[in-house]
Amino acid sequence: MIKLYDSKLSGNAWKIRLMLNFLQIPYVRETLNLAEGKHKEDAFKKINPFARIPAVELADGRFLNESNAILLYFAEGTSLLPVDPVLRCKINAWLFFEQADLLRFLAYPRFYTMINQREKHQDIISHYMELGKPALTHVDKCLEKNTWIAGESLSVADFSLYPYISMAEEGGYVLNEWPSIQRWLKDFKDIPGYENIVNA
Amino acid sequence: MIKLYDSKLSGNAWKIRLMLNFLQIPYVRETLNLAEGKHKEDAFKKINPFARIPAVELADGRFLNESNAILLYFAEGTSLLPVDPVLRCKINAWLFFEQADLLRFLAYPRFYTMINQREKHQDIISHYMELGKPALTHVDKCLEKNTWIAGESLSVADFSLYPYISMAEEGGYVLNEWPSIQRWLKDFKDIPGYENIVNA
Ligand SMILES: N[C@@H](CCC(=O)N[C@@H](CS)C(=O)NCC(=O)O)C(=O)O
Ligand SMILES: N[C@@H](CCC(=O)N[C@@H](CS)C(=O)NCC(=O)O)C(=O)O
Repeated sequence: MIKLYDSKLSGNAWKIRLMLNFLQIPYVRETLNLAEGKHKEDAFKKINPFARIPAVELADGRFLNESNAILLYFAEGTSLLPVDPVLRCKINAWLFFEQADLLRFLAYPRFYTMINQREKHQDIISHYMELGKPALTHVDKCLEKNTWIAGESLSVADFSLYPYISMAEEGGYVLNEWPSIQRWLKDFKDIPGYENIVNA
Repeated sequence: MIKLYDSKLSGNAWKIRLMLNFLQIPYVRETLNLAEGKHKEDAFKKINPFARIPAVELADGRFLNESNAILLYFAEGTSLLPVDPVLRCKINAWLFFEQADLLRFLAYPRFYTMINQREKHQDIISHYMELGKPALTHVDKCLEKNTWIAGESLSVADFSLYPYISMAEEGGYVLNEWPSIQRWLKDFKDIPGYENIVNA
């Protein structure tokens, strides 16, 4: 059985749960308490030396790290990842864009809000939001033309981008500015196996 | 013939040149003047709607974006990218880590230095360097055990991580702190087809 190491409220781990559910791949979860530093203990450093969740333990005992690399691993051979090299390159491009231009800029304003440090980190939050907004506009323009992120079919790119965009308002973004994103967020909630983020 | 859209001093474009050289794939370059905003003109927005270099135009006229997605496209079927799904996942993980934990934290201190705005962006630079240092320590620890980033063979991960790490000192990092990184930087310079970043 596959084991997913996650934590409460982690969007990166949520990506994996959404995809495993959609693909009907059974798994068990081990939820680490990051506030208590469980991910920094030696036991977990064998799983990910950089002390980050999500991580996956395969049935044969091998480990996978990095949310988008894990998504690609499970998407291989399914309808979520095309075989054509140019189409695949376009999907990969969205996954790299998610890490470089969305993840931190959306996740950190939310994180500082959650731990009541919004005032303290005001400058960093403004800086991140200045960078996150044009990235969201880019996504919105693509979703104006396409049903899903990478075209007319649901792909691994939707699973990568959905969690942090869907929670962006918790960090102070106002999604009204991006109507096609709002339409897509609604559509995504209807995919098979959809479930909410782990709250507890 | 393949065409690479790059710019002066771009580490992301340098990645592609290093790999195309190594694989002995011929290409021509078109160097955009970013300071003049050439990448924001309509002609280039057809190539990359998000107005970023690098981009690649294939012989059949199709376009590729995002440096690491382009690297994966050309690495497919070569010794730089293993076929085994778990090994491939580990390589992909390094590429996502490069985008999330290195690229901006190394590139922006360098960029602000180059345009003489280091003082103005002092707080952002400190914030980025606080994040970049543990990421470099993680890379260093891996290179203490392995010859190359992902093990004993040169892989696409080395091409992804090399440019910005090799230029980190231009942004204020002191690489003496990471001796295995220094060893690896020297080794990488000896690979076939190595050439410097485009300065002009
Ligand atoms: N690029 C990584 C980022 C993973 C990440 O930042 N995970 C967070 C939780 S969402 C974490 O483990 N943080 C703990 C820490 O940094 O100490 C991915 O996409 O998996
Ligand atoms: N994640 C992208 C980042 C590309 C990027 O930031 N390119 C810079 C040059 S190195 C650029 O085009 N900057 C112009 C701008 O942002 O206006 C990649 O890896 O290709």
